[in-house]
Amino acid sequence: MKIKVGIVGYGTIGKRVAWAVSKQPDMEVSGVVKTRPNWEVYSAIKKGYPIYTLKKSVETFRKKGIDVSGTFEDLLKDVDIIVDATPAGTGAKNKDLYSKYGVKQVFQGGEPVDLCEVSFNALVNYDRALRNECVRVVSCNTTGLVRALHALSKVSRLLSVRAVIVRRGADLKEIKKGPIEGLVLKPTKPPSHHAIDVKAVLGDLDIMTYAIVAPTTLAHMHVIRAELANNVSKEEIMQAFKTTPRIVLVNGDILSSTAELREFSKEFIREKGDIYENVIWEDSVWINGNEVMFVYAVHQEAVVVPENIDAIRALAGLITEPEESIKITDKVLGIGGWFK
Amino acid sequence: MKIKVGIVGYGTIGKRVAWAVSKQPDMEVSGVVKTRPNWEVYSAIKKGYPIYTLKKSVETFRKKGIDVSGTFEDLLKDVDIIVDATPAGTGAKNKDLYSKYGVKQVFQGGEPVDLCEVSFNALVNYDRALRNECVRVVSCNTTGLVRALHALSKVSRLLSVRAVIVRRGADLKEIKKGPIEGLVLKPTKPPSHHAIDVKAVLGDLDIMTYAIVAPTTLAHMHVIRAELANNVSKEEIMQAFKTTPRIVLVNGDILSSTAELREFSKEFIREKGDIYENVIWEDSVWINGNEVMFVYAVHQEAVVVPENIDAIRALAGLITEPEESIKITDKVLGIGGWFK
Repeated sequence: MKIKVGIVGYGTIGKRVAWAVSKQPDMEVSGVVKTRPNWEVYSAIKKGYPIYTLKKSVETFRKKGIDVSGTFEDLLKDVDIIVDATPAGTGAKNKDLYSKYGVKQVFQGGEPVDLCEVSFNALVNYDRALRNECVRVVSCNTTGLVRALHALSKVSRLLSVRAVIVRRGADLKEIKKGPIEGLVLKPTKPPSHHAIDVKAVLGDLDIMTYAIVAPTTLAHMHVIRAELANNVSKEEIMQAFKTTPRIVLVNGDILSSTAELREFSKEFIREKGDIYENVIWEDSVWINGNEVMFVYAVHQEAVVVPENIDAIRALAGLITEPEESIKITDKVLGIGGWFK
Repeated sequence: MKIKVGIVGYGTIGKRVAWAVSKQPDMEVSGVVKTRPNWEVYSAIKKGYPIYTLKKSVETFRKKGIDVSGTFEDLLKDVDIIVDATPAGTGAKNKDLYSKYGVKQVFQGGEPVDLCEVSFNALVNYDRALRNECVRVVSCNTTGLVRALHALSKVSRLLSVRAVIVRRGADLKEIKKGPIEGLVLKPTKPPSHHAIDVKAVLGDLDIMTYAIVAPTTLAHMHVIRAELANNVSKEEIMQAFKTTPRIVLVNGDILSSTAELREFSKEFIREKGDIYENVIWEDSVWINGNEVMFVYAVHQEAVVVPENIDAIRALAGLITEPEESIKITDKVLGIGGWFK
């Protein structure tokens, strides 16, 4: 029997998670909750997902000719797990409702750190999420950081991490966000929330993060400096990157920007150009004794999608080993193996 | 008698240096060399600078009604010092011609490191430039780095520097440069040229720099991590910043972006909105024992202008103390003292 998944919020993350759920062998999309009948709902309809909305909006949807399967609460009666991909902070308000219907919950990184017991990354704490009631999948930047640091920690213990995060200003569709010119130091007083969020996943760690917002929509870029407990070789670090799921390596002689990367992805990797992986520039990796620096890109719209899928499996509890869940997710979504 | 200065190349830097020279009590603009009669020449004419051009272009200029005072070589007969602000690499080709006419030379950071004996910053090596034949004023980013590191080094010896430079993609007028979308890791293999260039000014130093180009025209932003020989206090570091010329401090509660900064400058600091200073966010300064991190903005079009002025004075050799030259330059250009 498949895990019945409801998607609440069908925006940037919701639509991608719904599509990814629909491709998994052990899951199905029971329905999508959409509060406004804007353009995004038509893509959900075309994909054949049952549409649900707020009770007060049912008539509005029907007047637009949208076939509504029921209300938000109707959907909750019929699902095992909800992926809440509503705007930051809305998920927390929905939590009691989910609990009332006995539905397990996957929240996104915009929700408060303490909303669930577990701030989730599949590589790190699948076991803690196993059969839990609720997990919070950390944000795109934090997911990128956690993967990269997890890979390093396989080589040697992390003593300290200093990261500069150049954030995309908005997603393409976000017409009210900025900047469209200039660089924004956000926050001006460090750390950015990423340091706190990484610790929510990895535990106590000497980490400091600065974030600069840039006028771009395509992807974030992170520059990492880490000190490890031991001196390390470039070979060891590269090997750790190569053997960590959801990390791919590219070289500067092939491409050097998020722009080329996204175009490359559309053409050669995936139809929609989504990039689920941390894309590390292998020539950016610099080793100096126990010091490691490197740079990677994070596609903010897509990077948390595989983590959402694994989070669903962990909560459902049928697959107990993270490696197994990751393997299924990555095979279905075609993650990794770009240059094989 | 005033120092007679010729400006070769009247683009982003040339026009600003010419204007700044014209304001100094001890200098005058003897002429401006312009190779193409585009819009920029009309601003030079309006300011009353004598216009010179290549021999082959004199007729073209005259046909457009531009009053040409003579050829490039005519100007060289009549000046003490040339500021060469031609596109990167062109200055090196001009050097022999300048030498032939016995004219001293100020080049820009786009020229090769070894073009002159001295890669110049007024705070660091005015004495080495004194009465020399030639100096190379380092680029905008390097100038920003050198100032910031010089300030730190007043507190304690620099053990290591790791810097992330988020570069503006182009100046406003540069219609053929990019990116207009995406982030470019440039180069993908570190260090960026800035590390090498900083060492050309400061001497041997453990410095590593990564540079990311962003789609913005307004200013660069640098995130610095430095290790010092001793533990330091925030007070000591702030005091060093406050007492270093050409550094100003702003707070995140006033502004947090290069966009607001440039708008603020236009309105409150200077008519044209040029920013000659390193603008450090005081709340970005983070101290951890002997580790210091902080962030500042560098207005790429303007930051080297005061250094060019001091370079002229050093070569002329009439003012032997850097502090005296800096004081005159900064007073004339209204540098510093933003919030007094």
